[in-house]
Amino acid sequence: MEFMEERIRKDGRVKEGGVLKVDTFLNHQIDVKLVRQIAKALKEHFGDAGVTKVVTIEASGIAIASITAEEFGVPMVFAKKSKSKNLDANVYRSQVYSYTYDRFYDIVVNANALGEEDKVLLVDDFLANGQAMHGLLDICDQAGAEVAGIGICIEKSFQPGGQTLRDEGYDVCSMAKVKSLENGQVEFE
Amino acid sequence: MEFMEERIRKDGRVKEGGVLKVDTFLNHQIDVKLVRQIAKALKEHFGDAGVTKVVTIEASGIAIASITAEEFGVPMVFAKKSKSKNLDANVYRSQVYSYTYDRFYDIVVNANALGEEDKVLLVDDFLANGQAMHGLLDICDQAGAEVAGIGICIEKSFQPGGQTLRDEGYDVCSMAKVKSLENGQVEFE
Repeated sequence: MEFMEERIRKDGRVKEGGVLKVDTFLNHQIDVKLVRQIAKALKEHFGDAGVTKVVTIEASGIAIASITAEEFGVPMVFAKKSKSKNLDANVYRSQVYSYTYDRFYDIVVNANALGEEDKVLLVDDFLANGQAMHGLLDICDQAGAEVAGIGICIEKSFQPGGQTLRDEGYDVCSMAKVKSLENGQVEFE
Repeated sequence: MEFMEERIRKDGRVKEGGVLKVDTFLNHQIDVKLVRQIAKALKEHFGDAGVTKVVTIEASGIAIASITAEEFGVPMVFAKKSKSKNLDANVYRSQVYSYTYDRFYDIVVNANALGEEDKVLLVDDFLANGQAMHGLLDICDQAGAEVAGIGICIEKSFQPGGQTLRDEGYDVCSMAKVKSLENGQVEFE
């Protein structure tokens, strides 16, 4: 989407190690007008898919998922990062590997928040290696929920997450696909 | 607000130890229509206060803050829980005591996200002892930002946070004030 690429060009900052900072408009300070544009674009793409819930992972996905859920007229659910290792029969639980912290963390969703009657749109701010998204897919699988698609604000297409998900048959709709951050420059596909 | 009390009566669950669970509609699975009602009520109360930013703390405040920010036509900022103790000149940092985990955690806001030109509406899902809110107030103070007011979904008025903030002169607008959770029953003020 042109509007997303334009905003990244204008306000994104490239840091060492392939990090694209968008914390002035997308995941710390948030331009909710931009998020509404993202939500409308996702509605246009997935509007006929029968979505019953928009699901994301805390914390940076929540703003995007909230406004997207409102656009679809359905509830939003965010998976919580869990500190406790309790085996609770009333939650779906998965593990996500964090490259940033080089460790696994647990994510949980209450069993009453997701079921086999649901068609889920998964959303997140970034898609890079796809670890978080695979945790969410695992939880949808445990719940017996169908996945209608995956909506992403910024896909780093030089990392394998997006291609892997598409190879698995998921409809991944990314607002912007960044193919390179080399030499401090953002290049789009 | 009647709509909030009604929803808590219908879908809230009282757990041992004075815990009110609202995770089917407010802070895990989220009814975004309800959140829009909350946002409109906050706009009605604080609409003339010249709000330039809506600020909250991750994670449960983000959905409410996002939709409220859209209602006000201003950006949203959420304070991040910080694991690193780095002294970074480019962030405002405060400490919040968590009764749940009996420990302090750090919250941070980027210095470029908040400044003395800002009039801030602080929002959160719950107000109990007011620890998180005082952390956010500390950060506004460091930034030189003015606090226009505090918007809360559920105030536990049997705990001291709300009274303390009002004694300090803040305009605290709570959608529902719970005065007791004894015997598993929700009583409103």
